[in-house]
Amino acid sequence: MRAGLDEAFLAGLRDAGVEVAAPEPRYLEEPRGRWPGQAAAVLRPRSSAEVARILRAADAAGVGVIPYGGGTGLVGGQVKGDGACCVLLSLERMDAVRAVDSQSLVIEAGAPLEAVHAAAETVGRRFPLTLGSQGTAQIGGCLATNAGGVNVIRYGNARALCLGIEAVLPDGTIWNGLTRLRKDNTGYDLRDLLIGSEGTLGVITAAALRLFEPPAVEGLAMFALPSPQAAVALLGIAQHRFAGCVSAFELISRQGLMFQREVGMDLHYPFAEDPPWMVLVELGLPEGMDVDEAFAGLYEAAEDLILDAVIAQSGAQAQQMWELRENLPVANRRIGAICSHDISVPVADLPRFIAEADAMLAGMGDYRINCFGHVGDGNLHYNVFPATGRARADYDPDPVKHAVHDLVVDGFNGSMSAEHGIGRYKVEDLERYADPAKLRMMRAVKAALDPRGIMNPGAVLRQPPSKEQSTET
Amino acid sequence: MRAGLDEAFLAGLRDAGVEVAAPEPRYLEEPRGRWPGQAAAVLRPRSSAEVARILRAADAAGVGVIPYGGGTGLVGGQVKGDGACCVLLSLERMDAVRAVDSQSLVIEAGAPLEAVHAAAETVGRRFPLTLGSQGTAQIGGCLATNAGGVNVIRYGNARALCLGIEAVLPDGTIWNGLTRLRKDNTGYDLRDLLIGSEGTLGVITAAALRLFEPPAVEGLAMFALPSPQAAVALLGIAQHRFAGCVSAFELISRQGLMFQREVGMDLHYPFAEDPPWMVLVELGLPEGMDVDEAFAGLYEAAEDLILDAVIAQSGAQAQQMWELRENLPVANRRIGAICSHDISVPVADLPRFIAEADAMLAGMGDYRINCFGHVGDGNLHYNVFPATGRARADYDPDPVKHAVHDLVVDGFNGSMSAEHGIGRYKVEDLERYADPAKLRMMRAVKAALDPRGIMNPGAVLRQPPSKEQSTET
Repeated sequence: MRAGLDEAFLAGLRDAGVEVAAPEPRYLEEPRGRWPGQAAAVLRPRSSAEVARILRAADAAGVGVIPYGGGTGLVGGQVKGDGACCVLLSLERMDAVRAVDSQSLVIEAGAPLEAVHAAAETVGRRFPLTLGSQGTAQIGGCLATNAGGVNVIRYGNARALCLGIEAVLPDGTIWNGLTRLRKDNTGYDLRDLLIGSEGTLGVITAAALRLFEPPAVEGLAMFALPSPQAAVALLGIAQHRFAGCVSAFELISRQGLMFQREVGMDLHYPFAEDPPWMVLVELGLPEGMDVDEAFAGLYEAAEDLILDAVIAQSGAQAQQMWELRENLPVANRRIGAICSHDISVPVADLPRFIAEADAMLAGMGDYRINCFGHVGDGNLHYNVFPATGRARADYDPDPVKHAVHDLVVDGFNGSMSAEHGIGRYKVEDLERYADPAKLRMMRAVKAALDPRGIMNPGAVLRQPPSKEQSTET
Repeated sequence: MRAGLDEAFLAGLRDAGVEVAAPEPRYLEEPRGRWPGQAAAVLRPRSSAEVARILRAADAAGVGVIPYGGGTGLVGGQVKGDGACCVLLSLERMDAVRAVDSQSLVIEAGAPLEAVHAAAETVGRRFPLTLGSQGTAQIGGCLATNAGGVNVIRYGNARALCLGIEAVLPDGTIWNGLTRLRKDNTGYDLRDLLIGSEGTLGVITAAALRLFEPPAVEGLAMFALPSPQAAVALLGIAQHRFAGCVSAFELISRQGLMFQREVGMDLHYPFAEDPPWMVLVELGLPEGMDVDEAFAGLYEAAEDLILDAVIAQSGAQAQQMWELRENLPVANRRIGAICSHDISVPVADLPRFIAEADAMLAGMGDYRINCFGHVGDGNLHYNVFPATGRARADYDPDPVKHAVHDLVVDGFNGSMSAEHGIGRYKVEDLERYADPAKLRMMRAVKAALDPRGIMNPGAVLRQPPSKEQSTET
């Protein structure tokens, strides 16, 4: 990729009718305010043909292209602050519903996740990808990062919810892979290769998504628990009784409640006092079942594990319970983490991981830990904060991050990026922790599909030094 | 790849302790007896290290390697009859359980699917990939072909059931990707790229598989129906009532029963007379439900669609019902198909596809059609047979195959290989029907990961003419 940006490149696109604008500040920020980005322009195509025109021109001119969705990614995949200047490619003008029926929805990549939910509801169905940022996050970005969220335990991650994609490849070719089939074994699984590649192999322009019947009976309950062990044991009993019908199983710690109070949030809280741990359990059951009876049966079967339990008796109460979970990232951001870890381990190992990580950090310094997340997926957000009264700037995040990631990967054969991806923030971690054969394969695939390296340069994989750049230095 | 096979290659492997044998006839046959294979030797490694040694040597010598699982594949991926001579690589000696817990099973690729089921049962769990050939099919082959089967509607295909793989790459490197994580977004999804690549990108040597709690309550019923429309409508009602709890939904036609009688099978049959169509519905329900009540509720809700229904009252009766389904491929083989089609279309379009395909073939000649399969996945085995008293040899299969595939792909945006894969049988179909951009990407990925083209040459993608071969001609 070239170090500079050819002005003729932008002029040519403008002449061809592509919307080219100076990037407003919102395109150059990311949610945690860590990495300011730079870009020569933001391009806002209105069709896949325009995206194809842009990539063809970028490939010819050697210009880097950063696909930009809702901008809610947490690993810097959408911001590039250093090196050669690039253009941002925002698909926000491409948000049309192309087709919808009772089984599937074909929608353009720029549609916000909430618009996808709304389109599914028009046919009485549900698209079960649920994220805190769903008002802003776009479905294209959700697929590019293989987003997770709270319903993965039942429905799988974004990859599992996608039947087919339309994508523009780095050379400007449009791949029409918008099939709406549950089974299709015609060749290599390139759909799943592009999904989760964080815009480094091409640009997803539209997707055929699976829609689901809402369960006939649904309910939510909150359980107060003494320990993460009790949470994992309760999950096991719930899966045994309701195989496949547990829709969410989310862990909250006492520290999470304390942070919400500390930043002045108004807690609508079902228990008399703060238990050490809580889980939020959502069930989606068949016709003929009673959700109160189901939760009562679970309570009886797991009574020894449980300190207290409350079943939501109204939509409003369920909403309040969900707020306790959804406010966690907001409160965390206001407190200000030293570093955040999006990790996964085998589900059965979660309690041991929490105990060992807590003990390790207690030996390293004066930290507060807010650990929460998706027990059913073995996925925790294990986030580390300054002690009360101390400032984030007093701490060096790197030793903490390395210690936690070493423990996850070496101690538990876990993942140091469970659902957020690699972006630019974890490129070095990937080099440090990934199997060498996998890394080599990834580089070979990148070189084969994007030989000029124009797609989201520096994300996921380190940018190889170009000839031009190396002569500059 | 070289045209001949270097004897020094086999001698070197023998010296290194690899088991090298002349291939018995069973390795050179495939289930429908269509393509006789040839091979210089069958190699039976005992470890991933031996597989690595074999591929390293094959890559150096330019020898083609055909991975061989249970040999039950239906598209000739495991047999190569023409061109340069290859070696077969059978992992039958590698069938160890490496680890098992309540969430996952790590097992070597040569284990037959039934052994995988048995290993899951030792911890009270289930591995829900279910195929007619499960006594012979090996898990490595199931993953290499992304096998489907009767439980995909609930649990997904082989790809969805696999958490991680160990694989040997064409250059002999071992990739340790045996994670047991539900969520892992660390880089490109190479696991799913190798799964379904039919041994053309590397050899899967072990897999970490998802295990599931058996549903608390299970039951089976058979419904007699007037039409495929009624089957799809009944499926919709079942999904509405039992979202996520329908474990199988299999279509059988009257012709399927007639074929079983014609070849002398003893039918244990629940209805007084043959209905035009039947579906077999398996439910797996939460604790507290009664399966008879559940089926009764479904019957009431769908009474207008249903001619008759029988709920299996014992394991033996359920077994007899399943036999009506499982005997279909056996009877078909004895009757002798002109050609078989493993197709998928969007579920809602199944009835229209059957009507249009039947009408089209009625205009083309004197055929019998046995159409059956996985309604919930939109996947039919639409198989075409000679009229009574006529011989298979009287018919040209090609016009039938082309007409059916044209209708599937062009008329319904469907797939001409839903669950069986491409193998060698459908290489031309893939070239004919695949999106050109996808084909180009596939070739680029193959060239990047297997530059010498040693892995299962000629399967999935046509073998590019080698320099040596082209100078020969």
